[in-house]
Amino acid sequence: MKNAFDLIIFGGTGDLSMRKIVPSIYRSFQQGDIPNDSRILMCCRKQTDFDNMLKTIETKLKLYLKDGEFTQDKWHSFSMLLTPVQLDVIKFDEKWDIFGQLFDGFTDRIRVFYLAILPSIYGECCENLHKKDLITRVTRVVVEKPIGYDLVSAEAINEKIAKHFVEDQIFRIDHYLGKETVQNLLTLRFGNFLFENLWDSKSIDHIQISITEQVGLEGRAGFYDEIGAMRDMVQNHLLQLLCLIAIDSPNQLSSDALRIEKVKVLQALKPLINGDIEKNTVRGQYVSGLIDGQKVPGYLDELGNYESSTETYAALKVYIENWRWTGVPFYLRTGKRLKKRSAEIIIQFKDVTHNVYDFNANKLKPNQLILKLQPDEKIQMRLMANDVAGGTTRLQPILLNLDFGKEQDAPQATSYQRLIMDAVRGNSTLFIHREEVTAAWQWVDPIVESWKNSDISPELYTAGSWGPKKADELFEKPHQKWHENQ
Amino acid sequence: MKNAFDLIIFGGTGDLSMRKIVPSIYRSFQQGDIPNDSRILMCCRKQTDFDNMLKTIETKLKLYLKDGEFTQDKWHSFSMLLTPVQLDVIKFDEKWDIFGQLFDGFTDRIRVFYLAILPSIYGECCENLHKKDLITRVTRVVVEKPIGYDLVSAEAINEKIAKHFVEDQIFRIDHYLGKETVQNLLTLRFGNFLFENLWDSKSIDHIQISITEQVGLEGRAGFYDEIGAMRDMVQNHLLQLLCLIAIDSPNQLSSDALRIEKVKVLQALKPLINGDIEKNTVRGQYVSGLIDGQKVPGYLDELGNYESSTETYAALKVYIENWRWTGVPFYLRTGKRLKKRSAEIIIQFKDVTHNVYDFNANKLKPNQLILKLQPDEKIQMRLMANDVAGGTTRLQPILLNLDFGKEQDAPQATSYQRLIMDAVRGNSTLFIHREEVTAAWQWVDPIVESWKNSDISPELYTAGSWGPKKADELFEKPHQKWHENQ
Repeated sequence: MKNAFDLIIFGGTGDLSMRKIVPSIYRSFQQGDIPNDSRILMCCRKQTDFDNMLKTIETKLKLYLKDGEFTQDKWHSFSMLLTPVQLDVIKFDEKWDIFGQLFDGFTDRIRVFYLAILPSIYGECCENLHKKDLITRVTRVVVEKPIGYDLVSAEAINEKIAKHFVEDQIFRIDHYLGKETVQNLLTLRFGNFLFENLWDSKSIDHIQISITEQVGLEGRAGFYDEIGAMRDMVQNHLLQLLCLIAIDSPNQLSSDALRIEKVKVLQALKPLINGDIEKNTVRGQYVSGLIDGQKVPGYLDELGNYESSTETYAALKVYIENWRWTGVPFYLRTGKRLKKRSAEIIIQFKDVTHNVYDFNANKLKPNQLILKLQPDEKIQMRLMANDVAGGTTRLQPILLNLDFGKEQDAPQATSYQRLIMDAVRGNSTLFIHREEVTAAWQWVDPIVESWKNSDISPELYTAGSWGPKKADELFEKPHQKWHENQ
Repeated sequence: MKNAFDLIIFGGTGDLSMRKIVPSIYRSFQQGDIPNDSRILMCCRKQTDFDNMLKTIETKLKLYLKDGEFTQDKWHSFSMLLTPVQLDVIKFDEKWDIFGQLFDGFTDRIRVFYLAILPSIYGECCENLHKKDLITRVTRVVVEKPIGYDLVSAEAINEKIAKHFVEDQIFRIDHYLGKETVQNLLTLRFGNFLFENLWDSKSIDHIQISITEQVGLEGRAGFYDEIGAMRDMVQNHLLQLLCLIAIDSPNQLSSDALRIEKVKVLQALKPLINGDIEKNTVRGQYVSGLIDGQKVPGYLDELGNYESSTETYAALKVYIENWRWTGVPFYLRTGKRLKKRSAEIIIQFKDVTHNVYDFNANKLKPNQLILKLQPDEKIQMRLMANDVAGGTTRLQPILLNLDFGKEQDAPQATSYQRLIMDAVRGNSTLFIHREEVTAAWQWVDPIVESWKNSDISPELYTAGSWGPKKADELFEKPHQKWHENQ
């Protein structure tokens, strides 16, 4: 039994809404997860004719949905859910009264406010919702990164939201957490004896978490130059993925139990201070180069500012100081204008304790678990197997797909789709708790601060490369290498 | 560089030779493993016209080779390798002189005597080879089971062979060891960190080794009634498979190093004595029933003797008393006239330590490694994976193929083919050492003895069933069950 709900999108006609939120809702609707009497309120600042808005949405849906997902029929019924609301989030005027009318008689209904607006006005938006008495016991608010640019600013934003919502009403989205592979990772670990019993420093050699992008600034030059890769990607996405790999087994699979474990990990991150930062981090900035054969400008050219030392690339060697992980390096890496767009996690197990196959030019490669989140999602395991052609024993590495359980025909939920429906259902398992935001910034702040105060410039790397050569030097042992070099 | 060799088959026109040995050699020849100047001497007792012999061989090859393997061309060149030898193995007369002539000028050549004859005349055969001075430093002898029917008789046979051959010239075949899956098992264990580190009583719940047959006595009634399932199957095949699963990691992958480990396992088998036998073993005898819808007679009917208490089925719960395996039950089972023909090994891991998925009617099944040797060979792993259709987390077991590294087009060696070529090359890794024969009989003898002296008859089971119900009671815990009941 699925209950109808109201979803209110502030910034309804903005880029995020059009590219991610609305297509996701359309898809959930198509898959029967949204009852016909649910409502989607599209809030926008500008006065817009509703027919024009619908036309825009239709165009964007056709653009962002996959082939075959858009049908005129479904669109027709979907569009019946939409209601336009014209108001300025930061201008508390009579236009806000419309909510009172719309929600009249719907006070028991789940109400989800999606703040697809600038984080700097989250606070005012929440304040206004409160003043209009729109926040019920079953009201939730969904917010996106960036939540601040350091601990102090993040706390300020979180505090403003917290004035009107209790923590379990607040859903901080990290779309990487909505990926199927992340769920599969949890199942692999906690639904199977095999892996969880090898999930520690006794068995694991090192871990790599890598999110690489081909794009450059995408018109966000001013914003990005204030932020940089560390705050834009590492503080949230990479640390969140690190958490899910590194957590101890939770008491239950509830959001509270998971959060406790994630916070434990973040708080166990070995602080990088002083000399450590020089030794364990590499920051880079791209210069002009070729991506897929196309010449692209360097960061400073794109920026039009020849003075910036903002990093467009960051690589870090990180340790978690607890019983499970002491001594196991986690290599994190992210960057713009790199050779390929990809997000992947490599869990590399130790070498066999004793190699009995050191003949016939057999070369054992260590077992790996490979979690790919982008561009495609899959989980693979690298094993050594016999090459049976020919009479002699020859071993070769094979890659095994571990997530082939999925039925190809079954409708797949996208990351945003899953997360939005989770917010509707009040399931915050895959969202970021305030304590996590705090702990992550606490660890990140000194690194960013140190970089800022350093008189060493970022390493320059050519667009279309895998980043600064210096990042190769983070590895401790000769057999440890970034995945693409293995 | 492959060297030519001489293979001498005693019992050259017998059933084993026609069904297994000659087709295997033909296949190796076809795959380029046997040089054209090698020779195959087909020894038989009866005076036979060579052309007739060739016709018979051609007919049998067409019968036992797979589709497309036999070609008139290849057969023509293969037949050039064959030479008929007419003599009686146990009659030492002038006919044996033929070898002197044939081997003249070939003393340095590898010489393999394959004794496809009754074990009772192995001794005389070896004695005659010695008397004719046919045993060189590079001469090998291949023998088949059954080597005796108890420790004393086995020792007698081994002793007679050992009078003229040193142990590393003697190749005792167990065709299960030639199966690709057995090699893959070793690679899985010792070429990969993952499995070997879970290969003990801390991680493994129990192990099943099961070889089930649909056939009955196949005309071997007299022989079989003297022997029974325990001596025919458990003493050799099942205990050999148990060894390869249970061995500690060897110093090298040499035959000596492997043998040391296998003997250690056999010697660590917890003796079944007195009350243990009643509790830990089940023997059965089939009565008439349906196999694949066809009515088949019972054992006693087939035998024509209403007095026999010979077991056609044996199931045992076995423990290995060493650091690695203490407390892990190994369930062995074999029988005739059972529901299906199959040979498989199930390695069942423990349940997850703590189940966080006990909601949504999720039911976790423990991880298993499944090694199939018959009718098809494969290695599978059972994992729990997400069923992603639908929004809620639902787990389902999936079966993963672990040996898909093999190229489908590459020529596959059969078990006999691999073992014969290993004997030619002097590689005894996959053969049974005398010490293993001894140790296996030492453990088996008291069980057979106790059954013989028991006044309890074998459990009767219907042909086409999975054997006596009583075998289900061997299991210790409710979740432990024979594979087909899981």
